[in-house]
Amino acid sequence: MSAHRTADLGFARLDLDRVQRTGTPEVVYAAGKTPEQTVACLAALRDGGSALAWATRVDDATAAAVLERWPDALVDPEARCVFVGELPQPVGQVLVLTAGTSDGAVAAEVAATLAAGGVGCRRVDDVGVAGVHRVLSVAPDFAAADVVVVVAGMDGALPSVVAGLTDRLVVAVPTSVGYGAAFEGLAALLTMLTACAPGVLVVNIDNGFGAGVAAARIARSAQR
Amino acid sequence: MSAHRTADLGFARLDLDRVQRTGTPEVVYAAGKTPEQTVACLAALRDGGSALAWATRVDDATAAAVLERWPDALVDPEARCVFVGELPQPVGQVLVLTAGTSDGAVAAEVAATLAAGGVGCRRVDDVGVAGVHRVLSVAPDFAAADVVVVVAGMDGALPSVVAGLTDRLVVAVPTSVGYGAAFEGLAALLTMLTACAPGVLVVNIDNGFGAGVAAARIARSAQR
Amino acid sequence: MSAHRTADLGFARLDLDRVQRTGTPEVVYAAGKTPEQTVACLAALRDGGSALAWATRVDDATAAAVLERWPDALVDPEARCVFVGELPQPVGQVLVLTAGTSDGAVAAEVAATLAAGGVGCRRVDDVGVAGVHRVLSVAPDFAAADVVVVVAGMDGALPSVVAGLTDRLVVAVPTSVGYGAAFEGLAALLTMLTACAPGVLVVNIDNGFGAGVAAARIARSAQR
Amino acid sequence: MSAHRTADLGFARLDLDRVQRTGTPEVVYAAGKTPEQTVACLAALRDGGSALAWATRVDDATAAAVLERWPDALVDPEARCVFVGELPQPVGQVLVLTAGTSDGAVAAEVAATLAAGGVGCRRVDDVGVAGVHRVLSVAPDFAAADVVVVVAGMDGALPSVVAGLTDRLVVAVPTSVGYGAAFEGLAALLTMLTACAPGVLVVNIDNGFGAGVAAARIARSAQR
Amino acid sequence: MSAHRTADLGFARLDLDRVQRTGTPEVVYAAGKTPEQTVACLAALRDGGSALAWATRVDDATAAAVLERWPDALVDPEARCVFVGELPQPVGQVLVLTAGTSDGAVAAEVAATLAAGGVGCRRVDDVGVAGVHRVLSVAPDFAAADVVVVVAGMDGALPSVVAGLTDRLVVAVPTSVGYGAAFEGLAALLTMLTACAPGVLVVNIDNGFGAGVAAARIARSAQR
Amino acid sequence: MSAHRTADLGFARLDLDRVQRTGTPEVVYAAGKTPEQTVACLAALRDGGSALAWATRVDDATAAAVLERWPDALVDPEARCVFVGELPQPVGQVLVLTAGTSDGAVAAEVAATLAAGGVGCRRVDDVGVAGVHRVLSVAPDFAAADVVVVVAGMDGALPSVVAGLTDRLVVAVPTSVGYGAAFEGLAALLTMLTACAPGVLVVNIDNGFGAGVAAARIARSAQR
Amino acid sequence: MSAHRTADLGFARLDLDRVQRTGTPEVVYAAGKTPEQTVACLAALRDGGSALAWATRVDDATAAAVLERWPDALVDPEARCVFVGELPQPVGQVLVLTAGTSDGAVAAEVAATLAAGGVGCRRVDDVGVAGVHRVLSVAPDFAAADVVVVVAGMDGALPSVVAGLTDRLVVAVPTSVGYGAAFEGLAALLTMLTACAPGVLVVNIDNGFGAGVAAARIARSAQR
Amino acid sequence: MSAHRTADLGFARLDLDRVQRTGTPEVVYAAGKTPEQTVACLAALRDGGSALAWATRVDDATAAAVLERWPDALVDPEARCVFVGELPQPVGQVLVLTAGTSDGAVAAEVAATLAAGGVGCRRVDDVGVAGVHRVLSVAPDFAAADVVVVVAGMDGALPSVVAGLTDRLVVAVPTSVGYGAAFEGLAALLTMLTACAPGVLVVNIDNGFGAGVAAARIARSAQR
Repeated sequence: MSAHRTADLGFARLDLDRVQRTGTPEVVYAAGKTPEQTVACLAALRDGGSALAWATRVDDATAAAVLERWPDALVDPEARCVFVGELPQPVGQVLVLTAGTSDGAVAAEVAATLAAGGVGCRRVDDVGVAGVHRVLSVAPDFAAADVVVVVAGMDGALPSVVAGLTDRLVVAVPTSVGYGAAFEGLAALLTMLTACAPGVLVVNIDNGFGAGVAAARIARSAQR
Repeated sequence: MSAHRTADLGFARLDLDRVQRTGTPEVVYAAGKTPEQTVACLAALRDGGSALAWATRVDDATAAAVLERWPDALVDPEARCVFVGELPQPVGQVLVLTAGTSDGAVAAEVAATLAAGGVGCRRVDDVGVAGVHRVLSVAPDFAAADVVVVVAGMDGALPSVVAGLTDRLVVAVPTSVGYGAAFEGLAALLTMLTACAPGVLVVNIDNGFGAGVAAARIARSAQR
Repeated sequence: MSAHRTADLGFARLDLDRVQRTGTPEVVYAAGKTPEQTVACLAALRDGGSALAWATRVDDATAAAVLERWPDALVDPEARCVFVGELPQPVGQVLVLTAGTSDGAVAAEVAATLAAGGVGCRRVDDVGVAGVHRVLSVAPDFAAADVVVVVAGMDGALPSVVAGLTDRLVVAVPTSVGYGAAFEGLAALLTMLTACAPGVLVVNIDNGFGAGVAAARIARSAQR
Repeated sequence: MSAHRTADLGFARLDLDRVQRTGTPEVVYAAGKTPEQTVACLAALRDGGSALAWATRVDDATAAAVLERWPDALVDPEARCVFVGELPQPVGQVLVLTAGTSDGAVAAEVAATLAAGGVGCRRVDDVGVAGVHRVLSVAPDFAAADVVVVVAGMDGALPSVVAGLTDRLVVAVPTSVGYGAAFEGLAALLTMLTACAPGVLVVNIDNGFGAGVAAARIARSAQR
Repeated sequence: MSAHRTADLGFARLDLDRVQRTGTPEVVYAAGKTPEQTVACLAALRDGGSALAWATRVDDATAAAVLERWPDALVDPEARCVFVGELPQPVGQVLVLTAGTSDGAVAAEVAATLAAGGVGCRRVDDVGVAGVHRVLSVAPDFAAADVVVVVAGMDGALPSVVAGLTDRLVVAVPTSVGYGAAFEGLAALLTMLTACAPGVLVVNIDNGFGAGVAAARIARSAQR
Repeated sequence: MSAHRTADLGFARLDLDRVQRTGTPEVVYAAGKTPEQTVACLAALRDGGSALAWATRVDDATAAAVLERWPDALVDPEARCVFVGELPQPVGQVLVLTAGTSDGAVAAEVAATLAAGGVGCRRVDDVGVAGVHRVLSVAPDFAAADVVVVVAGMDGALPSVVAGLTDRLVVAVPTSVGYGAAFEGLAALLTMLTACAPGVLVVNIDNGFGAGVAAARIARSAQR
Repeated sequence: MSAHRTADLGFARLDLDRVQRTGTPEVVYAAGKTPEQTVACLAALRDGGSALAWATRVDDATAAAVLERWPDALVDPEARCVFVGELPQPVGQVLVLTAGTSDGAVAAEVAATLAAGGVGCRRVDDVGVAGVHRVLSVAPDFAAADVVVVVAGMDGALPSVVAGLTDRLVVAVPTSVGYGAAFEGLAALLTMLTACAPGVLVVNIDNGFGAGVAAARIARSAQR
Repeated sequence: MSAHRTADLGFARLDLDRVQRTGTPEVVYAAGKTPEQTVACLAALRDGGSALAWATRVDDATAAAVLERWPDALVDPEARCVFVGELPQPVGQVLVLTAGTSDGAVAAEVAATLAAGGVGCRRVDDVGVAGVHRVLSVAPDFAAADVVVVVAGMDGALPSVVAGLTDRLVVAVPTSVGYGAAFEGLAALLTMLTACAPGVLVVNIDNGFGAGVAAARIARSAQR
């Protein structure tokens, strides 16, 4: 079936038709791959006909290798992503909030994933609940968003407050920001899973990519 | 502001305008409340103008107390929910899958929440990955759904497979079904959070209510 | 030294001068004791000169045994406490908030402990962050309190919000309310320990007694 | 409302009036920020009118960047804090005890926070319970203190003993000192949460800042 | 080799010569066995020549079955042990301390095991560190003991203090007494494993039997 | 495809051809099912052509319901299994060892699964490593076995010793026997996963069924 | 007895006859040993008559030391193994699947262990369940294999799907690939232990060696 | 009282009379101390009259600093200990076993502690249970020992086997040797706490010092 073509590189078996099947193009997860493997995967995706090939969790060596191969590739250092090819025109809008400055890298991965998926993004940083009026001042923006992504470490309390203020779905991303009883993001993860306000869905710790994919699906479906 | 009226019962402070603010009517979480408290909460919501008042995690004594007060209340014993008032007309469709028969009670809570939220629901049970052809046989139904809810205990592997077969968002509900290393749903929860396919969002263990609220928001937004 | 007199009952060794040394009278922790043992402890404290003898975590059988021995004892069924003797005149004021109705029993133990310690108490229930305007509506009361005690289960997010709104110390009490990833209060405990707002101090899960003792010390010191 | 002015730096949104609202000035948490970001935050706080701007968890590069900008800034290398501006005159007194020499860095953060908050501090190190007479020899100092902060790693047993010897509130700070079953401070944290003596309140592992803020609030309230 | 005779009951394979090989007679662990199985095991041990056969973790039904078979058996209800045959003459002395009244059942199992092993025992209850002078008042007794067993739940801090006051080995027994962050004895277990005073050895939670066997070996070796 | 016929009971979707596809007949896991559901599943399997239909984790009510429907069904109370139809003739041999008497129920489930799968079984109980000569005395039997299943709770040390004495594969089954730090079988599970002798494979805690299925596959393959 | 000869190197006591006793030659686990110790162990095994001496978890320094001593040694850098001597002729066939490219190093250790054990190996990489058709396309190869080894990190869902498609035993190897809630392989481990399809046996996280030894035993027994 | 003299260095408060009070001289725990602090502590102990001053967990820089101050100090690099002054004459004998070569560093710390405490030591390495005959071959040595210390990582099964073969007390030391489900020594710790053979007492992970102190106390008491 044409919707299940794969490119077999030996060490990897790329799913060339994933975008047709799931709406999300196959992404190259660069952690645990050599720069050469990541480049080979991106090339295979391009050869397989993808208008855009991209990778996440890219370190400096891999970014350099990508730029050497494709000098016009786009590197987003905060998000640790690279893009080869053309970014689609964005539709819709996702509002991305962070509880603190240190959550910025994960929010950047959300934004990069939205860009790759052709969905618009507005980002507001450092609106943690310790100053709840900062949250309230953002509330008027909820109505314009198709979905709200909330990125928070430490106590992870922000999604509970946001979800009580909007009828938009809240995608919550716990981060590994914090120390001690934050247990590398476990505290924030449990807080978000047990949020007292309904309408909160959760992804893995630091998983900006997963949140971006999900938010893009919701935004696109709302724009249809 | 009229969107923040509360009914103060002393032991409870009901949020009468939550439906206006968040699209989801305030629900009475009956666990940890006496039958009298649950009845009083439902009555206050009705008095506050709610067309439908309902409660989750209802035990037999509470169900009886509700029926005594409102003989025409609707009791769903599998979902452990009660409804007082009129269910809205359903729009859209959510596909609810379970991995095994024992996950049925949680799936029933999803379905009840969708009913309360005015969203249509189709449920297919016992399509676990141990017989992956059962999953594949359901795949043609994905296109008709606005969102797919997957309920699974034990290894919690079903959402990973489903998300690879559809461009619909997958809301994953881990259940406490299983024993030993299932650790009361922890194994399924971790599996779902680390799902290798993107497009999976997760709620708390056994939280059919939360999955239903989220799925209803997505379906309503897709139907707009 | 007179400040270290003990009453030796064999199975228990009561610290008769604890009130002189620490400001808090010895309390009888009834869990794990027979009704007879609890009664014997209360009697020994009274015989040792305590104006008030009291016990926590009292079940029905123990409450009955206490009432049989001291018919004018005061039983608080919500807090599961009994008091033999005279409650002191209250000074100062502690504000006790709960996130939800189900946290009521723990808040009642806080209130009972304050009563035993001679400190005033004002209690406001069900002001969880899912409806953050309920929290804001309580904010004007913070100034009148010597210290604020916040009792919350599930996501345990309320103390983070409260601490950002007041210069009073916040004593946070996680409760075992919730299910699944709440892990019997662990989620709320971790949230409170990692609260992004400073000024939050934490006690053990469901430890209304400990929160009450601490709040009483602060209130008395502020009233000195 | 003037009590909610913020300085928006894009990556950070500083709460300029927190000291008016909560008694504690906004602090810059330097972990996870670049030296430039920390300097920018300090400058914004100064520009916003703060007599004292300060930061915690400062590494060497950040300390150097601060000194370059403000040559008369005060750097406390043990506490890993920097202060820009004038320290307030101290009132009251907090007694800070450590169980062992290795707990010194956390105790230094407590002391720095008290200095920033304008509260006096007396510190006594290495009085662990393995030599309980060292604890008893400190007991006469408890009466002069408004509150006692106890910093301990490994078994975390010191707060239990101290709380039995005084009517002062005990703020317990578990540290990550130890190895093996100390589990990075978890053992000490659990010990302190389950302390058999009442009057013990707990902060996050290694959270000298949080303990200092809380102790300062209590001391100031006692001095009012 | 005669030192490895076994009695094969099908469901159990009793080690008849364990006392010769290890100094400790085989004991019947009654938890998870039917009353009939426990009786059969005791009978086989008696038939195999044991002067004393005994069992631990005995419930009421099993105790009754033992008494029916051997009307002169000795039942210790606090320790939940039964003895069939003659207790040996005690030599040496083990000092057994408990931190609280609720730790009594475990201390009773220690005492019963010492009795079965022919070692003397002195028990002092309720000397927890919240009143450290109670511990100090017991210190003069340490010299007369061959070894000290300390039984404690909740914070489990007592062994750390005791070990700093004596040159005797301290065998620490964590108990499941407590709630919340005591985590069924885990907190006390971790405290004891990380005790800041050397000379503390630890057994499983609630394992009075194991502590008794170890203490008996040390006492016998000191008496040789 | 004929190898993927299913029987759809609404609440269950039975995999009728699993025996052809995987060599193991579909089993009914009765935990979490009503007696009526279990009976319906067994009937559907029989109707689908299975020579033997069987169920595990059967409680008394379900066993009674099965016997009422099929009076000649075989009930194994120790294993908590029921069999409807004819057991196949056994080939090969699996040696099943238990470390203690309390592990018997899990070993019985292994044996029942082998019986259902048509493989012979020899069981030797109570050969724990505390009397290592009991293990050595069984060693001569290893050669006659196609595979060895070792069932052990508490410290779970038996598989490590057995695997060092044989070239047969060892299937290790941790059980929830024990208390305290056994943590419901977690200790035994970790021990078996980290066994210092190679040749040990592990199943879930108390999963006698899984061990039986695996052992049957190995034995049948060795007999081919 | 000749089957228990050991070579005593002081720091190590090598089991020279393990291959006779268990079918698996003693391997040198190089982690935690100096290069000199590993070389000495390999030499002792060779001197003791082993046709092949080999080591796992070999770092670069150790590989260099081995090559210096035995220039014709075989180094497998992906598997981090070295072989001194002659590899046996392979019999039978084990199919080794990985879920993703990053699982390659562990699969390489499986393959190296099979080579050392004289068993054939076919390896197919990157067939994770996110593209379930990749798994189905491998299904025809199951029949040719004596046993299937499945290596997977993150959600660890692949063994559940594979085991439902074959009557071969599935040896599941969780890997530490992933981040956040993968908890260094714990998520995959729990998934595999609770796999809803029977016929799955599990080894320790990243334990390619253990999986290889077990698979070799099964393959050899099937080939007998 | 002369038995409680302390040397106050500001950052440390040394217990000069601990040897008189507890039989164990104060040791300097060098982890978390600067080289200068460790040297100062050793000097203070020498000045306070200690015939031997020593430190554990010494890194290279600290060892160099000690040798510079006391050129004739004794450095034990395997045990990471330094000794200043004269080692006492050894009495009695402790048998120290390791399960594997990688456990050597911890066993060396046990031996160093015994040397400092004046007790004899015999060490036998690499006698893990995977080759149980290696354990049996050591069994004749048990009778000559006053106590047996068993050091083991990974599955931690060795103490269970040893304790079944001797009437000597077994002090079990779990080590952090291993990977994956060994969880930095947790697996071995749980195994030892739940050892099926009585007579096993446990210390913290990698705590060779604690095991040495305890073993020395037992040996000295047996020699009295």
